[in-house]
Amino acid sequence: MIGIIMGSKSDLPIMSEAAKVLEELGVQFELTVVSAHRTPHRMIEYAENARPRGIKVIIAGAGGAAHLPGMVASITTLPVIGVPIKSSNSIDGWDSVLSILQMPAGVPVATVALNGGRNAGILAAQILGTFDTTVAQKLQKFKEILRDKVLESVQEIEENGWQGEKIGF
Amino acid sequence: MIGIIMGSKSDLPIMSEAAKVLEELGVQFELTVVSAHRTPHRMIEYAENARPRGIKVIIAGAGGAAHLPGMVASITTLPVIGVPIKSSNSIDGWDSVLSILQMPAGVPVATVALNGGRNAGILAAQILGTFDTTVAQKLQKFKEILRDKVLESVQEIEENGWQGEKIGF
Amino acid sequence: MIGIIMGSKSDLPIMSEAAKVLEELGVQFELTVVSAHRTPHRMIEYAENARPRGIKVIIAGAGGAAHLPGMVASITTLPVIGVPIKSSNSIDGWDSVLSILQMPAGVPVATVALNGGRNAGILAAQILGTFDTTVAQKLQKFKEILRDKVLESVQEIEENGWQGEKIGF
Amino acid sequence: MIGIIMGSKSDLPIMSEAAKVLEELGVQFELTVVSAHRTPHRMIEYAENARPRGIKVIIAGAGGAAHLPGMVASITTLPVIGVPIKSSNSIDGWDSVLSILQMPAGVPVATVALNGGRNAGILAAQILGTFDTTVAQKLQKFKEILRDKVLESVQEIEENGWQGEKIGF
Amino acid sequence: MIGIIMGSKSDLPIMSEAAKVLEELGVQFELTVVSAHRTPHRMIEYAENARPRGIKVIIAGAGGAAHLPGMVASITTLPVIGVPIKSSNSIDGWDSVLSILQMPAGVPVATVALNGGRNAGILAAQILGTFDTTVAQKLQKFKEILRDKVLESVQEIEENGWQGEKIGF
Amino acid sequence: MIGIIMGSKSDLPIMSEAAKVLEELGVQFELTVVSAHRTPHRMIEYAENARPRGIKVIIAGAGGAAHLPGMVASITTLPVIGVPIKSSNSIDGWDSVLSILQMPAGVPVATVALNGGRNAGILAAQILGTFDTTVAQKLQKFKEILRDKVLESVQEIEENGWQGEKIGF
Amino acid sequence: MIGIIMGSKSDLPIMSEAAKVLEELGVQFELTVVSAHRTPHRMIEYAENARPRGIKVIIAGAGGAAHLPGMVASITTLPVIGVPIKSSNSIDGWDSVLSILQMPAGVPVATVALNGGRNAGILAAQILGTFDTTVAQKLQKFKEILRDKVLESVQEIEENGWQGEKIGF
Amino acid sequence: MIGIIMGSKSDLPIMSEAAKVLEELGVQFELTVVSAHRTPHRMIEYAENARPRGIKVIIAGAGGAAHLPGMVASITTLPVIGVPIKSSNSIDGWDSVLSILQMPAGVPVATVALNGGRNAGILAAQILGTFDTTVAQKLQKFKEILRDKVLESVQEIEENGWQGEKIGF
Repeated sequence: MIGIIMGSKSDLPIMSEAAKVLEELGVQFELTVVSAHRTPHRMIEYAENARPRGIKVIIAGAGGAAHLPGMVASITTLPVIGVPIKSSNSIDGWDSVLSILQMPAGVPVATVALNGGRNAGILAAQILGTFDTTVAQKLQKFKEILRDKVLESVQEIEENGWQGEKIGF
Repeated sequence: MIGIIMGSKSDLPIMSEAAKVLEELGVQFELTVVSAHRTPHRMIEYAENARPRGIKVIIAGAGGAAHLPGMVASITTLPVIGVPIKSSNSIDGWDSVLSILQMPAGVPVATVALNGGRNAGILAAQILGTFDTTVAQKLQKFKEILRDKVLESVQEIEENGWQGEKIGF
Repeated sequence: MIGIIMGSKSDLPIMSEAAKVLEELGVQFELTVVSAHRTPHRMIEYAENARPRGIKVIIAGAGGAAHLPGMVASITTLPVIGVPIKSSNSIDGWDSVLSILQMPAGVPVATVALNGGRNAGILAAQILGTFDTTVAQKLQKFKEILRDKVLESVQEIEENGWQGEKIGF
Repeated sequence: MIGIIMGSKSDLPIMSEAAKVLEELGVQFELTVVSAHRTPHRMIEYAENARPRGIKVIIAGAGGAAHLPGMVASITTLPVIGVPIKSSNSIDGWDSVLSILQMPAGVPVATVALNGGRNAGILAAQILGTFDTTVAQKLQKFKEILRDKVLESVQEIEENGWQGEKIGF
Repeated sequence: MIGIIMGSKSDLPIMSEAAKVLEELGVQFELTVVSAHRTPHRMIEYAENARPRGIKVIIAGAGGAAHLPGMVASITTLPVIGVPIKSSNSIDGWDSVLSILQMPAGVPVATVALNGGRNAGILAAQILGTFDTTVAQKLQKFKEILRDKVLESVQEIEENGWQGEKIGF
Repeated sequence: MIGIIMGSKSDLPIMSEAAKVLEELGVQFELTVVSAHRTPHRMIEYAENARPRGIKVIIAGAGGAAHLPGMVASITTLPVIGVPIKSSNSIDGWDSVLSILQMPAGVPVATVALNGGRNAGILAAQILGTFDTTVAQKLQKFKEILRDKVLESVQEIEENGWQGEKIGF
Repeated sequence: MIGIIMGSKSDLPIMSEAAKVLEELGVQFELTVVSAHRTPHRMIEYAENARPRGIKVIIAGAGGAAHLPGMVASITTLPVIGVPIKSSNSIDGWDSVLSILQMPAGVPVATVALNGGRNAGILAAQILGTFDTTVAQKLQKFKEILRDKVLESVQEIEENGWQGEKIGF
Repeated sequence: MIGIIMGSKSDLPIMSEAAKVLEELGVQFELTVVSAHRTPHRMIEYAENARPRGIKVIIAGAGGAAHLPGMVASITTLPVIGVPIKSSNSIDGWDSVLSILQMPAGVPVATVALNGGRNAGILAAQILGTFDTTVAQKLQKFKEILRDKVLESVQEIEENGWQGEKIGF
């Protein structure tokens, strides 16, 4: 079971990407809102109970001065994946990225790209896949689909050219 | 009473500047280490008890993904002053600055300059000085000393010139 | 009484957020335009008279090379809260943030997030709340409302799911 | 078994931190040099054989235009932890951070802080700990040691004061 | 023959600028999609076969953690021109620029401006033009056209003024 | 006579601001397109002839790798004012700002704010005004108008309130 | 007469470069310390009296949240040259640069490079040289010296080679 | 023949790296100082005569507001390789990088990494190698040496361990 949490409901468009890819990969998850700054006690409770409740990996998304992933990581020993979100008054996303990434020695957060909800889901599945061969096989399949989509666009360009018309190469 | 906290003992060279200026201004303070990431429960306890214990302002310094000031502010309704610290593996201090400054609406942190321990102490005194006229008068005096030091260097240059030798202006 | 000032009338959409939250919290304020660069004498007069007129905290917002908060702080011993504003030709807001935040030792400005008008208002109330228990209680209430809004969205997702349809977790 | 690789032998001071913490946690690992740009075929071979050889997690460190973590992740379905290294001609570490973190959708890299070798090791152990309870218990113990070190410095300051001399708080 | 490759079909609007200018200059080229992260083996194959197949210069465009140009350069000894692309979740293009530009000693990538597809095409022609005098002459002609377009706008302003109306200068 | 030049006709919306303010101040100017990269000989000719032709100050605007102001300054001894322009593929304007501002010792460019065409015009007038008292008086008048516009918005807010309705302060 | 001012005596190593080059060019100047934040009234007095006292150009240097140049420019109609100084706790100089450069429309500051004291002096001389032909001639001579120094190092490399030993090219 | 030029003799430590690698690869070159800002006419002459004199590729290094590579490229149709140099008052090298890289459409500069003198030399050889098979073979050999050096450090770690003592993996 993967736990997906986010600092605000407005993060849902990014964080639902994690949920969607976990569905595609057949991995169970739960999703809810936990705010470090507005519900600190709920956050601590969530982090403390995650392992006992059977959560294997926590995906936490937040924007601006994004403290949720790091604070959850300070409490649990589960791997925590951080998703920096480019929120409205963010300074180009730098604040979200740096306040999730730059954790001090002792308390890592596995940070993915800005707005990288989908990659957070895949990374969570990869972590399960270190022991769960079914998930590992689905990830292998998933990689092949990524490759095939590229090959399709290769063929499309070969057939239709790069300007919508066939060119000779 | 002002509470000065910092994420690590290695922050003491910066944070002791806050303590020193409070001593100069005759303002009582306490100083200790509270780590958001290594002692989250101590942090919550500190933040919850600060007001009941008679703390008026909390000064919190931290570096890198600096969550201490913002997390303390999420729990207490006291004003929290954040001091971004340029720690060894910081990315030029940007991480500390942004993860303290860019708090979401609802939970402010009064951020001062990078490594601005001294200014954090002065700001804390200014906050007390809104009601405490003794502190306000000391701050006024303090401003005059700042001015006088500038005037001294004006005179020094007038007398000795800008190259260690007198020039005609 | 809180004094809200801004460098230009075009800053009003951000700075009125400070006014609104002070109204919510029942804190008196005044609001006007004071430009460091276009009305320097008015600025000095404002800063010098603020404490005698009974102002407790000054909130100053400005964009670009934002000198208003720091210059006001150079004159008064009241706490000055600076709001960096992302104006039209700003370089992503970095100019506003750095020219407010990076004050030299001796003259602090309590800087809040980029466009953080609302947080400036809350911080001003927190400063009053160090001595005024009525304001302190309202701030405590305010924190509970923040928490409750998060819990509402928790429940909403539990009931309706994260895709507008219920999912099993 | 954890695989630790780095782009150049000059990265060893940072990457050996990952090795050391894995030793502390009793987790087996191997460590070698694999360069994306100078030994691309060795890199592909390493990435393809990692899972068959029993590797569970790959830790990859690199500096500048750091392609090693992302390229390894393009080949294997194992979780790949990326360590951005601030090398000599790096532009303040930004190049290393961004070229590891900003992976496209489909191919995540679990990025840790700049020069965060130690955190990479801990994160790798956390991933094993999702299934291996011995490792999980050691991580729990590890967290307690982190906490205790903070409490020691708390006590030290209480006893000796913040200026090397006892002060009354 | 110039080889134009890009990490994703979505890069075509930028990369087709390279193709267009090569057409204008009468230089033969081929264009296809090669993804470092989704088709690593195809990338290696492309890079290894480029010189034997008669390719003289490779133009490679990619966004975000842009590894395609550098990885191709790690395999071939042909000159590789890198085009950083400002993709949707890019951090203002910095990630694309730095992960293409900051290659380690030994493996250069000839980087052009952000979204500089057109300049990549011209640079490729300039490389051919070091030996091919026909191309060199076309490039000389091309420079004259650039100059003449400026002179046209000079004349246009002289005739019509800078406000759509003639002014006296 | 002020010479206004720009690297491309597309810079006219910014650079015409310089022209407009010079008209307001009654200062003569000429305006044309001179491209450092597309018409280097024209640029040199322009710079060499400027002083003989009676030009007193050159205002040069350019975007991206903006070489026009610095190159003109390398040839003439007239003061050159540089206007960094945020062009379409600029990296947030940083490229324009830094390639105009960071001139080596010996060859200054008087740089104004990003897109600061209007300020370039005022600065040029200020330079003339060091000797020309008519221009100096107009600049003094101009400063008063700036001040009066602020005072008007002060009065407007006093009368109408900050929310379109009168409030009591 | 040129007025050189700086925010702190610690800025003297940079600002004395302006003084030195003015001496080389035979231009009269005065030099003193004027702090915007510690002596605001002195700053206003200085700015108001500069023109009446016969100052033609003001060179103002400051670091961090550098308000001195812009505030002086808000009061006087003389051209103000701003020198951003990379002070000890500056964030790599960005704060100094942006808080001097990004002035709002109406109040320009002629900004030179970070730590560009020498260029500030030359620019001040260029401004005088628009009317003063003696200064203009000295500037022309100065340009020739710059050129000759380059030609000397050209010859030196021709004679001694680029490795301290003669090589055949 | 490759032409290596640099804006100042102080750039020689970086630019001699280009010379050294060309010597290793048996490629003829010449090396001299050409300053865009201090010897603009020499620069134009150099650029105009380069192709007639038999130069095939120009390598141009410069720091700060680095105009040399782009200005040379505006005059010649030869490929120009730009080397951004992190000079003493550079803003962390960003100025050098951006003012070389961000050339407008029509005038490309092949930019290499900050201080990337060595890569500039290799890239120049690669350009010759598109037609000259001897150079191409030497580059192939060169790639193998790069690879072998990595394999040596692999073996060294295998034999001696990562801590100077053998460990069992």
